[in-house]
Amino acid sequence: MKIAILGGDGFVGWPTTLHLSDLGHEVHILDNLSRRWIDTELGVQSLTPMDSIQERCRIWHEETGRRIHFHLLDLAKEYERLKSWLAETRPDAIIHFAEQRAAPYSMKTDRHKVYTVDNNVSATHNLLAAMVETGIDAHLVHLGTMGVYGYSSVGAAIPEGYLPVDVETLDGSKATQEILYPTRPGSVYHMTKSLDQILFQFYAQNDGLRITDLHQGIVWGTHTDQTRRHAQLINRFDYDGDYGTVLNRFLIQAAIDYPLTVHGTGGQTRAFIHIQDSVRCIELALADAPSRGDRVRIFNQMTETHCVRDLAEMVAKMTGAKIAYLPNPRKEAPENDLVVRNDQFLALGLRPITLAEGLLDEVVEVARKYAYRIDRSRVPAVSAWTRELGSKVDHDPEGKAIRSVS
Amino acid sequence: MKIAILGGDGFVGWPTTLHLSDLGHEVHILDNLSRRWIDTELGVQSLTPMDSIQERCRIWHEETGRRIHFHLLDLAKEYERLKSWLAETRPDAIIHFAEQRAAPYSMKTDRHKVYTVDNNVSATHNLLAAMVETGIDAHLVHLGTMGVYGYSSVGAAIPEGYLPVDVETLDGSKATQEILYPTRPGSVYHMTKSLDQILFQFYAQNDGLRITDLHQGIVWGTHTDQTRRHAQLINRFDYDGDYGTVLNRFLIQAAIDYPLTVHGTGGQTRAFIHIQDSVRCIELALADAPSRGDRVRIFNQMTETHCVRDLAEMVAKMTGAKIAYLPNPRKEAPENDLVVRNDQFLALGLRPITLAEGLLDEVVEVARKYAYRIDRSRVPAVSAWTRELGSKVDHDPEGKAIRSVS
Repeated sequence: MKIAILGGDGFVGWPTTLHLSDLGHEVHILDNLSRRWIDTELGVQSLTPMDSIQERCRIWHEETGRRIHFHLLDLAKEYERLKSWLAETRPDAIIHFAEQRAAPYSMKTDRHKVYTVDNNVSATHNLLAAMVETGIDAHLVHLGTMGVYGYSSVGAAIPEGYLPVDVETLDGSKATQEILYPTRPGSVYHMTKSLDQILFQFYAQNDGLRITDLHQGIVWGTHTDQTRRHAQLINRFDYDGDYGTVLNRFLIQAAIDYPLTVHGTGGQTRAFIHIQDSVRCIELALADAPSRGDRVRIFNQMTETHCVRDLAEMVAKMTGAKIAYLPNPRKEAPENDLVVRNDQFLALGLRPITLAEGLLDEVVEVARKYAYRIDRSRVPAVSAWTRELGSKVDHDPEGKAIRSVS
Repeated sequence: MKIAILGGDGFVGWPTTLHLSDLGHEVHILDNLSRRWIDTELGVQSLTPMDSIQERCRIWHEETGRRIHFHLLDLAKEYERLKSWLAETRPDAIIHFAEQRAAPYSMKTDRHKVYTVDNNVSATHNLLAAMVETGIDAHLVHLGTMGVYGYSSVGAAIPEGYLPVDVETLDGSKATQEILYPTRPGSVYHMTKSLDQILFQFYAQNDGLRITDLHQGIVWGTHTDQTRRHAQLINRFDYDGDYGTVLNRFLIQAAIDYPLTVHGTGGQTRAFIHIQDSVRCIELALADAPSRGDRVRIFNQMTETHCVRDLAEMVAKMTGAKIAYLPNPRKEAPENDLVVRNDQFLALGLRPITLAEGLLDEVVEVARKYAYRIDRSRVPAVSAWTRELGSKVDHDPEGKAIRSVS
């Protein structure tokens, strides 16, 4: 297959690119490299030393004889170039990672809110409009997030995309209608992913576009079978307060004998998936494309759920780190349950890697190995969800505000 | 009250401006005059001769002694100017009409799709981000559309914004949760209004913004008590295939002895409201602001429903016009029922003007009076929803393709 990977230089985009190239597909990365620019803006860098995209592609070719094609293109701002490229290349599948993907970054300032909305909505909509206009029949696979649903639902297990609702009809009888499972995003970033869902619904219905939307959990882990092949193919590992996920920040804190900082009670439950399973899910979703006229196919791309407190305890036990409880800069429920259905990927053959079996590798092969590169000042989370919350957040978790509890 | 009217030069914006100025409020129009530019782009003009916004404001001052302040500003592109203006002026209420509002225009070409999404989403989100950033506590009243819900629901009467859904909880018991009534937009324009709904939900929840969303039906009628006061205060009347609503096009067709062109079976049922009731509803909504922390208040702003075929027959009976049935360029159900709840405005004191009583005025005072200004070539609808539908649409309804049935 000829596959376009939009955002193929990013944290999930890069290992996906390698995985699909390794399977023999003709792979094209389209990326504006904005994630690298944001590193520059924030003055942070990946823990793992990361080469330029051009150099990464060169090494991959040297190692495997396979070519990855890289195209510098801004989806959100270069509609006409995108359209020409699609019309010429006519990919069979398009995997769309090309959105700003950090909730804290999207809440930093009004400029970051505006950037996240403009970039993410225009990128996704430009792609859809260009697919219709060029008449290509590519299968679009989009990376969404479980986070669109929020974490305060009173409902039972979150189904895969759709919710049957009983309604009374005009003649007074009862009927069941399937609606998109309602979203309740908790950040500007999550909000843009909720908007995407409505764009997809429209273009599948009006133009028959074939779309799969993967509602992913928090991705953990660094290495995949392909990134391990050469030191310069290594994936990025973010640990700063904006792009570092909770798990990555715990690993880094443990590696430098910093307390594991839990915001609020730590009762926030989230869904997780290993990066190796993430690229495998994308392969499975590609092989199972919807037909023209089908509704959007939605998968929950996650394999287990944990609350933040339990994650901290897991890392503390493995490393001897202490745990510190800090005020929560996010506006969210202090505690929540979370049960998620993921039957579709399990039925397609996914065999998950669990945190219990994979986490020690991360401690040893990544966090400790590269500990010398850690910038301690970048570890605290600094984006507050509202001004009021901002004033309560202690930006110095090593200071006396920490209540060390373990 | 100090009121900002975004898009105050438009079809509903202008009479709303006059109505609120007449009530004694300090009124500021913010508008980029894009609607006038689109007239230029399409080579069409309002049937009624329409003065510049500056001249309109001057005449209003001459007639009433009241000042309307006009500010040329592009909400979608001038975030920083918008923020400065809000911080300085600190309006008590903001009425937001500033979006591209024609479904056929939004479907003309890919350029029009991209413009509609970029303009509407950025305008609305910039406004929300600037309200939070400046810390003003204005009540935001937004003009949405009934059309977000689509017209193929199996449900009974469309409620005002929210739908109670029965869900099973994690412990196996039943609970009722209120969700936003699910949207199923049928055009790119309607899609942007569905996106707005999610933006509003987020900013009301995260930042306590006080928001009212008016889901309006198709607005008909031209004059209000204030636009009648002087010939140069007259409201715009669109009859072209993009911006002219079905009713306006019937009126114009009748005035020039052209057959009333019904697309498809005419079984499409839509919600309607007179322009005078529309401005009155906005006044009522302003007086009934939600409190900080409330969820978004949603009203269905419509007063009656009719199917297109019945509208054609109503106009035909009044004018002697014939009816012609043409292929439908829109992707939509050929026939639909529509029942809409509008209890909230009725409870607040709205006494609707019905089509049955008001339509003859439009025939005599508008369509016949200005018939000399009609450009016959602009009457057919030319935007098709998909390429396949485009090839089937007959762009010459005066030619032999018309099956004249009346």
